[in-house]
Amino acid sequence: MLSREENDLLTLTGAGTPMGDLMRLYWFPALLSEELPGPDCAPIRVKLLSESLVAFRDSDGKVGIVEERCPHRKVSLFYGVNRECGLRCAYHGWKFDVSGTCVDMPSEPPESSFKSKIKLKSYACEERGGVIWIYMGPPEKKPPLPDLIWNTIPESHCFISKRIQDNNYFQALEGGLDSSHISILHKGTFDYNVAGAADIKKYIANSAAPKYEVMETEFGALMGAGRDTGEGTMYWRSTAFLMPFFQMVCPYADEPRNGHVWVPIDDETCMNWCINWHPTRPLTEQEVHNFKKGLGIHTDLIPGTFKPVQNKSNEYLMDRSQQLRGENMTGIKGVGTQDAAMQESQGAIFDRTDERLGLSDAAIIALRRILLKTLSDLKQDVAPRSLQANYGLFDAPAMVVPKEKSYKDAAKDVIRYGVSV
Amino acid sequence: MLSREENDLLTLTGAGTPMGDLMRLYWFPALLSEELPGPDCAPIRVKLLSESLVAFRDSDGKVGIVEERCPHRKVSLFYGVNRECGLRCAYHGWKFDVSGTCVDMPSEPPESSFKSKIKLKSYACEERGGVIWIYMGPPEKKPPLPDLIWNTIPESHCFISKRIQDNNYFQALEGGLDSSHISILHKGTFDYNVAGAADIKKYIANSAAPKYEVMETEFGALMGAGRDTGEGTMYWRSTAFLMPFFQMVCPYADEPRNGHVWVPIDDETCMNWCINWHPTRPLTEQEVHNFKKGLGIHTDLIPGTFKPVQNKSNEYLMDRSQQLRGENMTGIKGVGTQDAAMQESQGAIFDRTDERLGLSDAAIIALRRILLKTLSDLKQDVAPRSLQANYGLFDAPAMVVPKEKSYKDAAKDVIRYGVSV
Amino acid sequence: MLSREENDLLTLTGAGTPMGDLMRLYWFPALLSEELPGPDCAPIRVKLLSESLVAFRDSDGKVGIVEERCPHRKVSLFYGVNRECGLRCAYHGWKFDVSGTCVDMPSEPPESSFKSKIKLKSYACEERGGVIWIYMGPPEKKPPLPDLIWNTIPESHCFISKRIQDNNYFQALEGGLDSSHISILHKGTFDYNVAGAADIKKYIANSAAPKYEVMETEFGALMGAGRDTGEGTMYWRSTAFLMPFFQMVCPYADEPRNGHVWVPIDDETCMNWCINWHPTRPLTEQEVHNFKKGLGIHTDLIPGTFKPVQNKSNEYLMDRSQQLRGENMTGIKGVGTQDAAMQESQGAIFDRTDERLGLSDAAIIALRRILLKTLSDLKQDVAPRSLQANYGLFDAPAMVVPKEKSYKDAAKDVIRYGVSV
Repeated sequence: MLSREENDLLTLTGAGTPMGDLMRLYWFPALLSEELPGPDCAPIRVKLLSESLVAFRDSDGKVGIVEERCPHRKVSLFYGVNRECGLRCAYHGWKFDVSGTCVDMPSEPPESSFKSKIKLKSYACEERGGVIWIYMGPPEKKPPLPDLIWNTIPESHCFISKRIQDNNYFQALEGGLDSSHISILHKGTFDYNVAGAADIKKYIANSAAPKYEVMETEFGALMGAGRDTGEGTMYWRSTAFLMPFFQMVCPYADEPRNGHVWVPIDDETCMNWCINWHPTRPLTEQEVHNFKKGLGIHTDLIPGTFKPVQNKSNEYLMDRSQQLRGENMTGIKGVGTQDAAMQESQGAIFDRTDERLGLSDAAIIALRRILLKTLSDLKQDVAPRSLQANYGLFDAPAMVVPKEKSYKDAAKDVIRYGVSV
Repeated sequence: MLSREENDLLTLTGAGTPMGDLMRLYWFPALLSEELPGPDCAPIRVKLLSESLVAFRDSDGKVGIVEERCPHRKVSLFYGVNRECGLRCAYHGWKFDVSGTCVDMPSEPPESSFKSKIKLKSYACEERGGVIWIYMGPPEKKPPLPDLIWNTIPESHCFISKRIQDNNYFQALEGGLDSSHISILHKGTFDYNVAGAADIKKYIANSAAPKYEVMETEFGALMGAGRDTGEGTMYWRSTAFLMPFFQMVCPYADEPRNGHVWVPIDDETCMNWCINWHPTRPLTEQEVHNFKKGLGIHTDLIPGTFKPVQNKSNEYLMDRSQQLRGENMTGIKGVGTQDAAMQESQGAIFDRTDERLGLSDAAIIALRRILLKTLSDLKQDVAPRSLQANYGLFDAPAMVVPKEKSYKDAAKDVIRYGVSV
Repeated sequence: MLSREENDLLTLTGAGTPMGDLMRLYWFPALLSEELPGPDCAPIRVKLLSESLVAFRDSDGKVGIVEERCPHRKVSLFYGVNRECGLRCAYHGWKFDVSGTCVDMPSEPPESSFKSKIKLKSYACEERGGVIWIYMGPPEKKPPLPDLIWNTIPESHCFISKRIQDNNYFQALEGGLDSSHISILHKGTFDYNVAGAADIKKYIANSAAPKYEVMETEFGALMGAGRDTGEGTMYWRSTAFLMPFFQMVCPYADEPRNGHVWVPIDDETCMNWCINWHPTRPLTEQEVHNFKKGLGIHTDLIPGTFKPVQNKSNEYLMDRSQQLRGENMTGIKGVGTQDAAMQESQGAIFDRTDERLGLSDAAIIALRRILLKTLSDLKQDVAPRSLQANYGLFDAPAMVVPKEKSYKDAAKDVIRYGVSV
């Protein structure tokens, strides 16, 4: 349970809010590269952290993400012409390059110096692994683009989709770090064939109340959920939290890994980025086929949009008969959509001043503590956790270890690179 | 004309409001029994007095109406599983019985006592005559379920429908007690054959400005509208107001009686319950057929919803040509829909600080006075009028009496049971 | 750039606002005559300056525009019966004539004097040239209906349409007086054959940065945009602003003239009246055919409404390929729709506290200055500019004059009637 002030601190991310300022110190995904398919393609609207922006790819293939409205008379540059290395406002023809510099102003006399005084707000962009990344913070604090495992492996090893979720980013992030609900909400849904995962399924089914451990790390935290195997060992599953809203889930045996990024669109909507990857091999044709069909953490989208076919307005196409037969806890198809149904039903911005947390909520409690501490440190000019270390080459660990070994010690052994604890 | 404060007092019914507190001292209809058709059927959402609730019928057939969101992480229990005598939250598996007791909590260790500290808000429910009744007040003040005539006669004598109306309950209640508009708004609509009602039709058509009398009663009030028959007698029609939002209309000859209950969904929406009954005989096949077809006070609904087919978005399918031919005052089909058109056009919450009341508004003025007095009494711990007396076996009287006899005296003679004046 | 206060002064027009008070001193178009096609036709809703009204044509053909809701119980008179020289409320039968006088009150006893105390707010209306004009100000200040050129010529000389625009009236008015965007936004759209306009097209294409001059007049202002012809002369195009929201554009050669009236519906919506006329000849069949097809400043409407088919929800049916081919700046069909796309994208009420104006914005700057001065004068009881002079028989001038002659001197020569400068 949080105070109203704490809830606001964690959930509001517009320009000038404490959390908004923190998020603007990190790179994060803005668009799929394919949304801007080629030089001089149509500009598109994008909203990030409550800021209305327009993205375009110029004649040289460079991406610009700029404020949506022309500084002159504030009409939308969405209607502008993207040609000859710049986006030209359709109203009076002011033209801007990807850096926001005004490069032409036909409405003023040629001798005027007005053009040089005009600047369109523009954010740093980089492309890697099919994703356009953005940095929206102060230029002097801009870090290098982080090396996450899924944006450093070959593209063949990775599958990425995204969809709009109609709730604040933070309840989605909390849900993503909450191992506890796996045994309940997703029961019956993980049933596609996982080679070598028979034991894992047994361990998970056997215990809906695992033991929870949290280990803070340089990049955020590892959340461990431990289940007694009944054979003198513990089965520990980890979920990683990476600042400020990235998440990675440990694999089931040699299955592709799952990860999410929940990027605030505004305070009541977020973009749910869904990533599957395998660190050492290409995804199989069957795997890619399944992901494209909306299985696993992915979902079918309404064509031409990033809105899911299964959504609140149609009760996520739930089938109550599956509930009664015990096949599926909600009767909703898809792990990701099951999560969305829960999270959207918490309200647009979940009010945490009235909830009842138990032992199983250790990860959520830790997450809030870490972020609130970071915000309070930031106020004292203490720099937040960095994504600069090469933790990115890291997979959240799943492991079976002797009962007498602590989660933290076990995790330290398994983590292969760059995590200092 | 009311002050802003008085208007708020009469119209706002959320938890903690004076009128909301008053309403919570009475039983009222929550659902049709058929909305929860059998044991372990799908839970449904219901909103009452601005509270979001979920209703379910457990394996034993008992009905539970509980707050919509699980106390743990506040996800909607609508997505929960209704099985084995309880509703289980789909997120982490917390399970509640119809009384709101937490009977299972798989996400916490078996030894935890956390479960015993968790309680889901739950309201008392009873079923009678095809209706699920609810009591949302303090348990220690819970009265017995009231015996109204239409919920004590055999089900064959009674027909009940309900529909959503897009306005505050109070302007609907006012309209239901306003005899004055019958001669105007509903002119031409009461033309289906009423055996023995030839005189009645003549009396009503002859006078749009009857004489109004109000008689306070133990349960609320009787509102009389008297018309001179021209034969030395008065024809008095009564409308009964029963606390806090029930209404009954006197019959036309031996026709079935009409009644309404306007239950606030929230402050801008109400559920209009429409009841036809005959105290001493089953409804005929023809009558039931007509009611099902949306005649009389009933209306056609959009399948799968309680929204009327004729609604504000389609101007209630009004036919202007009927207005010009003088057949129908609005060109709108159906007494109930005619009322809804008027009441919805008053605005979501009718602002009574700017209206002009005449002599014909005596019933409305009395209604407001009675309710404002009740609220002010309640503040001094004076108990409100009770529905405990068996006034329920009562029909609002229609009568032809000598002119020299007062309405009150005449009504006292006619009222057969339980009304003390 | 304006202060917040100045922006509010110019954009808010409800009853009691300074700009609302100013507008209420002028006649302006309320409806097309054809919207009330004959005596006793159906009443219609109309919203003007944020006031909800009902319009009807009585049995004698007279038009009444009155407040929407009956003074009694405030139900909408839209559902009323328009018959026998009055509009009768459907609820209790109160009947009003076009002047708002209550002429019948059947719900009260015949001897009651209540009727004489009831008055429905009603506004003065006049019809001319297919338009119903309204005056919403104090009766004692009512001027005569103004003689504009397009409402004094024969109906055969004039074509009028109207459509809803989803933004505040003032940004539309600013756009209408802004000559600067013609060379950019509308480039490629004026290509239907203009006899004798070859030179004009050349002049306009050659310069997107003309010289701007503003001349205040008795009725408002003339805004001149001058382009050097390269032949020792200047080509001056004028746009006229007439208080409080009328506009006229000078012709291309002998083409019909264009004009607009932007009437506030409420603060976030306006009615865009579009007028084409020729002062001395009937419009040709081809011209009328084109206007009806939605060419020029007109647009296709969704049948039965005044909403344009091309609108924000469908991105105005823009065709990006036309942008890339350089055929059309936005890929949007129609001059009027191109303007609407720009203006609606400025936001419901354009926030002028953050914009960057240049030399090309001289007309807009003058417009604001004139109106703010008028509002400040009005506060001191200084009467605003009048539309009483017969400036209405005036066309905004387009002219080619020697370079040494000033715009103001040239315009004075051309203006034929009634403009004192």
